[in-house]
Amino acid sequence: MTLSARNRLSGEVQNVEIDGLTAEITVEVADGQTVVAVITRRSAESLDLSEGDTVDAVIKATAVMIDGE
Amino acid sequence: MTLSARNRLSGEVQNVEIDGLTAEITVEVADGQTVVAVITRRSAESLDLSEGDTVDAVIKATAVMIDGE
Amino acid sequence: MTLSARNRLSGEVQNVEIDGLTAEITVEVADGQTVVAVITRRSAESLDLSEGDTVDAVIKATAVMIDGE
Amino acid sequence: MTLSARNRLSGEVQNVEIDGLTAEITVEVADGQTVVAVITRRSAESLDLSEGDTVDAVIKATAVMIDGE
Amino acid sequence: MTLSARNRLSGEVQNVEIDGLTAEITVEVADGQTVVAVITRRSAESLDLSEGDTVDAVIKATAVMIDGE
Amino acid sequence: MTLSARNRLSGEVQNVEIDGLTAEITVEVADGQTVVAVITRRSAESLDLSEGDTVDAVIKATAVMIDGE
Repeated sequence: MTLSARNRLSGEVQNVEIDGLTAEITVEVADGQTVVAVITRRSAESLDLSEGDTVDAVIKATAVMIDGE
Repeated sequence: MTLSARNRLSGEVQNVEIDGLTAEITVEVADGQTVVAVITRRSAESLDLSEGDTVDAVIKATAVMIDGE
Repeated sequence: MTLSARNRLSGEVQNVEIDGLTAEITVEVADGQTVVAVITRRSAESLDLSEGDTVDAVIKATAVMIDGE
Repeated sequence: MTLSARNRLSGEVQNVEIDGLTAEITVEVADGQTVVAVITRRSAESLDLSEGDTVDAVIKATAVMIDGE
Repeated sequence: MTLSARNRLSGEVQNVEIDGLTAEITVEVADGQTVVAVITRRSAESLDLSEGDTVDAVIKATAVMIDGE
Repeated sequence: MTLSARNRLSGEVQNVEIDGLTAEITVEVADGQTVVAVITRRSAESLDLSEGDTVDAVIKATAVMIDGE
């Protein structure tokens, strides 16, 4: 993969919800930890996503915050 | 949980690198999958982050992309 | 809250609008200055936001631009 | 200003810190509430920002989170 | 224009699609290359965007990734 | 490339500047219009970017603003 985004979490699509121009994709990345992506409906349709698909959740490092709790 | 960001991946700090105004924090979230966060030096210092700390990587859903591969 | 995001503006919810998968929350932060957040419907519902609630608008420093006018 | 970003908080520059490629600008928006922006050094130089300048902190609504506390 | 965002691509609006709280604006920037913006319905309405309008697509440098292919 | 990000502008690397943890990449996308990306030093190094390389500038639609001028 040649994309500069540093974060690539592989997992399985658990849910695809499309409404209006927006799609919400839930991906189980590991041990029950899930990642939710909000993408455009057109992206979800062109990627033809459905439950059970293996995908990567891709995230730019500048978009990640740390909660030190 | 009171923050609207949908993604909260718990894990252990593997590395803290600070240079100039920027800090790069690497967190092992599960099974060897890591997440890198770019935050400000001041945030890293005020959170007093160091290797081995348990933290959450927090990500807004609109910042997550899907690679359908 | 020990989150790395540098910006936390406290204020009162003026309006909550939910449509499809998206919610638009308007918060009066001070002296009539308002901040609008676009979050997911699920976040708005799980935070159970309504007019008059005291909340913080939280923003990562890398998401803020400056208009020097 | 005809920019689609919904959030425009006016205030006074309190601090400009430049190091390497990055600049951190602190703006007092109201009643002691401050906003920190991380922009590029070149932007800070081309805007010729200095303490006391009146500026707007501009933020896209999708970048704002809500902490319901 | 005095905004710190480093990227400003001028072009012509090809399409404006509004649904619920969201608007998707397609801009042809050059040689058939298009840029799609997701903004809020209210922004699209207040900018009164329609096909054929000349606009700028404005993007913060920290939001741009590089695919080295 | 099967990434959900809607914007992919192809062009040629004009400049690569690395300082500390950050890298600033300038890409000429068309007709003299350039796009600047701020990525991490490690991404720039792992992509082994240099002037003259053909790359894509990749941008999520939610990160694009419209200036109606």
